[in-house]
Amino acid sequence: MKYEIKSKIWIEVDGQIMLGEGRVRLLKAIKETGSLTKAAKTLNMSYKKAWGLVDTVNSIAEKSVVTKSVGGKNGGGTNLTEYGERLIKIFEEINESCWEHLDGQIKTRDLE
Amino acid sequence: MKYEIKSKIWIEVDGQIMLGEGRVRLLKAIKETGSLTKAAKTLNMSYKKAWGLVDTVNSIAEKSVVTKSVGGKNGGGTNLTEYGERLIKIFEEINESCWEHLDGQIKTRDLE
Repeated sequence: MKYEIKSKIWIEVDGQIMLGEGRVRLLKAIKETGSLTKAAKTLNMSYKKAWGLVDTVNSIAEKSVVTKSVGGKNGGGTNLTEYGERLIKIFEEINESCWEHLDGQIKTRDLE
Repeated sequence: MKYEIKSKIWIEVDGQIMLGEGRVRLLKAIKETGSLTKAAKTLNMSYKKAWGLVDTVNSIAEKSVVTKSVGGKNGGGTNLTEYGERLIKIFEEINESCWEHLDGQIKTRDLE
């Protein structure tokens, strides 16, 4: 039998969830599309829900993770801040290191 | 601000969830009470749900994790097998090692 260990991580600030897999997915979609509307569509999420999530991350995090630009030739949009990019990078690095750690752990155990 | 990293782990066998936090909690309650009915009550869970969970673990795991004894002076009961005890121990050890690993990870990152 093939035993696998799976995990989910999230970052809390003062007991509140700041960032988890779903929010990271949304932030990455914002980065790719430059638009909250498009990002929400990509993830089959309502605009309202996406906006709520981004607003939550923004309010909990030390600095803003997205900024809204208004007007301009393309009618403005939503963009990831440098801080937002850093948070995503840290999250993904820790997530991968967690998987590696767990793979190592399960290999040393006798589950048979 | 106090950043914390949280995690949840579970063990899958051939793509099916065998053991996660909830099931471990149930198995530990069975161990403590020697009864599925009592264990379910302790966890505010219906007997049906508890039975379903135990049945799932039993059918996915290499060996049975609980056994039912029928009759006898105390009217029988449900008991954890040695294999069940080992699985719980492994799960909890890996879970703790995961937390330690993640604590170490978050300390080395600059989230400010």
